[in-house]
Amino acid sequence: MDDLTARVRAFAEERDWQQFHTPKNLAMALAGEVGELIAEFQWLTPEQSAAVMSDPDAGGRVRAEIGDVMIYLTRLADVLGVDLVETALTKLEDSARRYPIEQARGSAAKR
Amino acid sequence: MDDLTARVRAFAEERDWQQFHTPKNLAMALAGEVGELIAEFQWLTPEQSAAVMSDPDAGGRVRAEIGDVMIYLTRLADVLGVDLVETALTKLEDSARRYPIEQARGSAAKR
Amino acid sequence: MDDLTARVRAFAEERDWQQFHTPKNLAMALAGEVGELIAEFQWLTPEQSAAVMSDPDAGGRVRAEIGDVMIYLTRLADVLGVDLVETALTKLEDSARRYPIEQARGSAAKR
Amino acid sequence: MDDLTARVRAFAEERDWQQFHTPKNLAMALAGEVGELIAEFQWLTPEQSAAVMSDPDAGGRVRAEIGDVMIYLTRLADVLGVDLVETALTKLEDSARRYPIEQARGSAAKR
Repeated sequence: MDDLTARVRAFAEERDWQQFHTPKNLAMALAGEVGELIAEFQWLTPEQSAAVMSDPDAGGRVRAEIGDVMIYLTRLADVLGVDLVETALTKLEDSARRYPIEQARGSAAKR
Repeated sequence: MDDLTARVRAFAEERDWQQFHTPKNLAMALAGEVGELIAEFQWLTPEQSAAVMSDPDAGGRVRAEIGDVMIYLTRLADVLGVDLVETALTKLEDSARRYPIEQARGSAAKR
Repeated sequence: MDDLTARVRAFAEERDWQQFHTPKNLAMALAGEVGELIAEFQWLTPEQSAAVMSDPDAGGRVRAEIGDVMIYLTRLADVLGVDLVETALTKLEDSARRYPIEQARGSAAKR
Repeated sequence: MDDLTARVRAFAEERDWQQFHTPKNLAMALAGEVGELIAEFQWLTPEQSAAVMSDPDAGGRVRAEIGDVMIYLTRLADVLGVDLVETALTKLEDSARRYPIEQARGSAAKR
């Protein structure tokens, strides 16, 4: 993960793209890539979506879009000085408190 | 990163939420969280967005939204059997080939 | 539709919000609202989503989110000088040419 | 607007695409198109975004993406039995109450 952050940063700096990489712009780029990812699933049934990686074409596209989303998320977090994994772990602990196992089990109310 | 994947998985399994966690649904949840993240930046100037973490309120919200985005991205990748960091690194190498440093430097054409 | 455009414009001008309503910012606001809309559907089965308006709570939220999306789309089109309905009709004609009825019927390839 | 709704519906029915047009899927398609729209603005400065329609290439792409967004929003509203313009007007009246002119004027707090 640290290696990924460093490589994404080097990629941007070598191309002198820091000027474009404001948090605002990176959030937009992230949203654009998530739009491409969601488009891969929009007409699939839930069952088809679960099997998407067994289709070489669609599976390859999904993998590539996930890579793009991760790149921009990593870059956004780096520019903001946020540790991606640590922040996710903290948020997960919050969620564990808000959705205690016994009440939340199997419920569609929120997950 | 492996620890995060395992914890997010355990969080879902303890609550019996695997039934809701199809790739289709998780892609939607990811898009919903990215929508909340982008909303934090929508009225900010590029300069204000660069300073967002120095505002305790806005900075805290941005950090929390990034955590949520990372949780759903981690869960989606896990459900699909995709290694998030490896896939991002592969995609970054593709991009390095498509945007050679000399031609891409400082260019707004694509970044 | 013209009335809606005029009212959304007046709403912004009365509050002196034109300064925030650049196309870039409005596209972000639109994406944020679409994120809230998609969150209403993320854990529903396709069947549940088809019945969402018969649930007063969820139906009311969906209606309100659609209203928000339409407001920002109307404002974005107005700021850009784009006629929303005319542009959609033109795009629909393009799609009719690209997806001739006989070949496209019932196909999941693209819709 | 009624004409657009009718034509979008006919377009779907002629191709037997109603089976794919659940509200869940249409919300995803809408999000995908908004992702393409936002990608047009992601690297532009606010000033460049304001001038985007004077660039024939970028302006044409923005117009086409707005058309796509409007088509899916119209289709989603039709499938849900929601009147798009009426719902937006109702929501605008709510917003007028929540953001009274005198307090809201020029404020970046929310718009």
